[in-house]
Amino acid sequence: MQNTEGIEDLSTAIRASIVGASGYSGTELLKILSRHNFVKLDKLFANSSVGKRVKDVYPWFAGRAELMYDQYSIDAVDSSNLVFIALPSREAMNIVPALLERGKKVIDLGGDFRLKDPKLYEKFYKHQHSAPHLLPQAVFGLPEWNRSAIRTASLIANPGCYPTSAILPLAPVLKEGIVERSGITISSLSGVSGAGRSATTDFSFAEVNESVRAYKVGEHQHIPEIKTSLEAITGAPVSMTFVPHLLPITRGIYTSIYASLAKSTTQSDVLEAFRKHYGNEPFIRFSDTAIPEIKNVNYTNFVDIGFRIYTDNNQLIILSAIDNLVKGAAGQAVQNMNIMFGFNETEGLLA
Amino acid sequence: MQNTEGIEDLSTAIRASIVGASGYSGTELLKILSRHNFVKLDKLFANSSVGKRVKDVYPWFAGRAELMYDQYSIDAVDSSNLVFIALPSREAMNIVPALLERGKKVIDLGGDFRLKDPKLYEKFYKHQHSAPHLLPQAVFGLPEWNRSAIRTASLIANPGCYPTSAILPLAPVLKEGIVERSGITISSLSGVSGAGRSATTDFSFAEVNESVRAYKVGEHQHIPEIKTSLEAITGAPVSMTFVPHLLPITRGIYTSIYASLAKSTTQSDVLEAFRKHYGNEPFIRFSDTAIPEIKNVNYTNFVDIGFRIYTDNNQLIILSAIDNLVKGAAGQAVQNMNIMFGFNETEGLLA
Amino acid sequence: MQNTEGIEDLSTAIRASIVGASGYSGTELLKILSRHNFVKLDKLFANSSVGKRVKDVYPWFAGRAELMYDQYSIDAVDSSNLVFIALPSREAMNIVPALLERGKKVIDLGGDFRLKDPKLYEKFYKHQHSAPHLLPQAVFGLPEWNRSAIRTASLIANPGCYPTSAILPLAPVLKEGIVERSGITISSLSGVSGAGRSATTDFSFAEVNESVRAYKVGEHQHIPEIKTSLEAITGAPVSMTFVPHLLPITRGIYTSIYASLAKSTTQSDVLEAFRKHYGNEPFIRFSDTAIPEIKNVNYTNFVDIGFRIYTDNNQLIILSAIDNLVKGAAGQAVQNMNIMFGFNETEGLLA
Amino acid sequence: MQNTEGIEDLSTAIRASIVGASGYSGTELLKILSRHNFVKLDKLFANSSVGKRVKDVYPWFAGRAELMYDQYSIDAVDSSNLVFIALPSREAMNIVPALLERGKKVIDLGGDFRLKDPKLYEKFYKHQHSAPHLLPQAVFGLPEWNRSAIRTASLIANPGCYPTSAILPLAPVLKEGIVERSGITISSLSGVSGAGRSATTDFSFAEVNESVRAYKVGEHQHIPEIKTSLEAITGAPVSMTFVPHLLPITRGIYTSIYASLAKSTTQSDVLEAFRKHYGNEPFIRFSDTAIPEIKNVNYTNFVDIGFRIYTDNNQLIILSAIDNLVKGAAGQAVQNMNIMFGFNETEGLLA
Repeated sequence: MQNTEGIEDLSTAIRASIVGASGYSGTELLKILSRHNFVKLDKLFANSSVGKRVKDVYPWFAGRAELMYDQYSIDAVDSSNLVFIALPSREAMNIVPALLERGKKVIDLGGDFRLKDPKLYEKFYKHQHSAPHLLPQAVFGLPEWNRSAIRTASLIANPGCYPTSAILPLAPVLKEGIVERSGITISSLSGVSGAGRSATTDFSFAEVNESVRAYKVGEHQHIPEIKTSLEAITGAPVSMTFVPHLLPITRGIYTSIYASLAKSTTQSDVLEAFRKHYGNEPFIRFSDTAIPEIKNVNYTNFVDIGFRIYTDNNQLIILSAIDNLVKGAAGQAVQNMNIMFGFNETEGLLA
Repeated sequence: MQNTEGIEDLSTAIRASIVGASGYSGTELLKILSRHNFVKLDKLFANSSVGKRVKDVYPWFAGRAELMYDQYSIDAVDSSNLVFIALPSREAMNIVPALLERGKKVIDLGGDFRLKDPKLYEKFYKHQHSAPHLLPQAVFGLPEWNRSAIRTASLIANPGCYPTSAILPLAPVLKEGIVERSGITISSLSGVSGAGRSATTDFSFAEVNESVRAYKVGEHQHIPEIKTSLEAITGAPVSMTFVPHLLPITRGIYTSIYASLAKSTTQSDVLEAFRKHYGNEPFIRFSDTAIPEIKNVNYTNFVDIGFRIYTDNNQLIILSAIDNLVKGAAGQAVQNMNIMFGFNETEGLLA
Repeated sequence: MQNTEGIEDLSTAIRASIVGASGYSGTELLKILSRHNFVKLDKLFANSSVGKRVKDVYPWFAGRAELMYDQYSIDAVDSSNLVFIALPSREAMNIVPALLERGKKVIDLGGDFRLKDPKLYEKFYKHQHSAPHLLPQAVFGLPEWNRSAIRTASLIANPGCYPTSAILPLAPVLKEGIVERSGITISSLSGVSGAGRSATTDFSFAEVNESVRAYKVGEHQHIPEIKTSLEAITGAPVSMTFVPHLLPITRGIYTSIYASLAKSTTQSDVLEAFRKHYGNEPFIRFSDTAIPEIKNVNYTNFVDIGFRIYTDNNQLIILSAIDNLVKGAAGQAVQNMNIMFGFNETEGLLA
Repeated sequence: MQNTEGIEDLSTAIRASIVGASGYSGTELLKILSRHNFVKLDKLFANSSVGKRVKDVYPWFAGRAELMYDQYSIDAVDSSNLVFIALPSREAMNIVPALLERGKKVIDLGGDFRLKDPKLYEKFYKHQHSAPHLLPQAVFGLPEWNRSAIRTASLIANPGCYPTSAILPLAPVLKEGIVERSGITISSLSGVSGAGRSATTDFSFAEVNESVRAYKVGEHQHIPEIKTSLEAITGAPVSMTFVPHLLPITRGIYTSIYASLAKSTTQSDVLEAFRKHYGNEPFIRFSDTAIPEIKNVNYTNFVDIGFRIYTDNNQLIILSAIDNLVKGAAGQAVQNMNIMFGFNETEGLLA
């Protein structure tokens, strides 16, 4: 595990802190940053664990890193070039303004800066936005589509897990006019870690095991994120249904997308669309034959995409799999960091 | 557990045998019949286990029933009024003709008699039908829609697990003209017992656990069963996409259905449609508020149905949950038997 | 599901209430009593769910039983012959005295009345006993060893889940002098429902899945229950180690027992010991060849026992499996009730 | 992921091949070696997959490594310095002699060279040893106890998963005379990947999920490995019972050890024993307070050890957790390789 001595060339290293470092996303971030060759971990902030050692909260870290959780304050991050925020939505927007004023780069893993329209935010997050003036400058951190804006951004809104799993498979076929922009159905399945490290009966083992349930049907906060991002990428309106389901697995998202074909299309045409847009992407793997499985992407930053033309119902079916904590959160955040600071984009992400 | 002494009135009891009694469906059937007050278990046939005691293959039965597996022959079922067949598709059609000739009632839990068109059968089951002359008389055993035909049938084609979970939620809203007949999407999730008791790496614990995969995309043999059954019930063409997914659970099917609204519709309108068709059904539970969960139906013969109007994409979303081995197989078979022989329809099915 | 009409002969039926009816044990009890032919469910008490319908808290009950949760008071159970208590330890002892004064029969599924010595109770349960005067009359409800005392008892202390899984396999071989009374090791594995329906991170799916941990090593409150019960049954001191482990399963306890042989012993000798003591027990299944598995006993009231003489270390290894919510709680409570009220001991317990 | 270009200094790199590269252990080895800075993967041999690309058998490797499976022959490994063998027991002993003759270093992950006595091998592995003359020179590859012998060995017998989890916790307390050498009980729990990638009903999801079973009670081939290794390390006879159990988890072993105290001992004394022997070990983490959990070690090469003095039964209880595929197989094999070739012992093992 990385420490000052492990960094190959200290002159090129940056110092990064994590606010909300003891949740699942924050902890995954800590794991990834610990094996990154050009990052020095500066501070870890976690209100509920202030003063505790990381290895006492997560024994996984024992024998690897001697780190402690601190109390967050704006002054406490003075030594950092970059601040990751892995807080519940609504909390990030209260600390981001001061961070930007101090000239820090910020990557927010939560949902506070992903929607450009504060009214849409209010509708789906059920509370007012306290820093709407920052929404225009926030860059949606989906490297495959926003790489150049990410490079110069000060504030990255790191995409949600479901949106990552839905936007990446859909964008190329929408952009190439292969499928209709309306009537899209997105049926997603998520592991329980997506709900965060929470103490509620709803996510207890005995309630989740040997069961499945859809939830927040038609109301999930990722609906406008998927829709507006697809519209931004493709430059035209999109209408879709998104339904998330909770599964008895710890990690992983599986997304099944059903869209009407806009024209006569073959498997090769679809393959070509993915090749055109993702042919050089280091973290997107697509195939016109293989069907994705969560186990192939878990603990990795990869997105696996497979698809079938289903002529009987004139549809394109696309299937995608990601690890919700990696490409769906911490891994993608590090990918964004790598782009922002000019590191190799895969640094720390191919272990 | 039932035995001759336990039957309340022997004069009203029937004698039933099971062919293929050692697979998961056959075993579930055995469990249910064992607590049925008007059935005397006659013979259990299971090629691979001939001569073994049931309790040695399934220790669950120890201390309950002293039964053995026999070798099937047409003469061996002479003493039975009813024969359940729980064999892989393609095997049932070889023994059904002789059974019907001997005047036995037959309930086939497999797929051999569910499609009326032998060409469609051949296309999806990948082999020719050997008894196409019996297809016209086979009754699709979905009690909620075919009760009167079931009552007098000699040969019941017990519905597949996915079809049961898809047809029951869709039929009322199609019949009432609430949703369009085209562009329907059915995304289903199944537990591993649906694949039968097979020894393949694909279904081994280490391959299935902590993963999800879609399979047989656009090719599953339940596609024509769902489509033709919905067409038979509603009297008009239906076009749809069906994609099954394998989950790390043992039992249960969760089906999410996405259909375009055909007219302005409210939650109450949908509720009314379900009430109209299923208001008196003993095994269908529907709600305009609750979302189904597999754990509520596992080990039961219930179908749970929930729904949401999603106006942003002009869709009706319907969610259903069943136990694939009960309402999706053995439970529904017993429900059919109860109807055929004039027993209370819930007998043996509410433990 | 049972209701007044379902009871075969109302003149022989009793009325029973459950205090703490919305936890896992209370709910399992409700399921079992609902299919019991001689019990009329009177009242269900559950503080946190007062005024709610059972089917809204547990949709499993929809279409089966129309029951509500009430607020407990001593007057509210006036119409009951029998009161089951499924409360956390420490709460039962506050309501039992008044119940006994009113002449109610009481079966307590918790730990408050299982230890005869209030000091031992205080040591392991970490609080004082408020009704120590009732301890002498409480009967430890292990039917296989206390059947005649149970028959006439007013207050039953229903055994704990781990103790049931440990005492039943050990008692015969201790009593027959097959194993030494000291140096016994009991290593138990439990599903998560054993921890009750609690909202803590410790039992969340993402923390429990794909892991195992020992807990309360040397401190578990079932230690004195196992020890004193074995001593009561065998009439001599016993020394043992008991370590429980938490597994990623919902239901079931697997207990592995290691004891030193006291004399030259064969598999047949051990089989004979079990036959002598349990040959006529309806819920104990033992074998000198088969090894127990949890799946064979889940959702049943059976205890499965297997064993091996291991001569290299001069030990007898005994393995047992139960369902922690049935034979380890609600099922055994109903078995006790059946004995107390003269019903067939298996009534309601062989579904 | 490693390739020729990724190796930091080619002059110091070695070339390694894997025989049996498509099983679970072989695949884990491939993952670890792919991130090792001083190993060039030479050939991968896997009979059943000859000619297939690794990424087609394990899509996890897509976008990482372009490797194929070859047919093994002695000539095909001519370019390798080191050959790992991850074959089922009985197959390794047929190819090892020729490899050693050609001057290759060999690390065998199977059981063929772990027992010094060919008669003991025959008794537990149920077939004759074909290369007993090599047994004396084989070094049991447990780095914490055999580091200097490993350094110069040509043939390493990589320890079994259960033995690793049992020997490491026991050796220090035996060596320090803290516990008795007789009457030791070792109760182990294993994930399903320990059984290898096999297609049998016994390990299918539907059979393993929601269950637990002990197996090979008193007969497991790891019994003599644990016993003779402990005797070799401590220089005196050891008698013990070992019982393995199969759990519904994919990876991980949890071992609970119960041993009689040989003298008056405190927690600190035990801590001191571990400190003395393992204070500088990079992969052993021990604590006198924390209790191990599998999730803390999964996907790592760590062994976690916790313990309690249980005075009531005069026992020391020790608990350990490892990942069966890493420290229990492939990780330990790489640790051995690192020692043999003078690399940093943790190289490739701290990702």
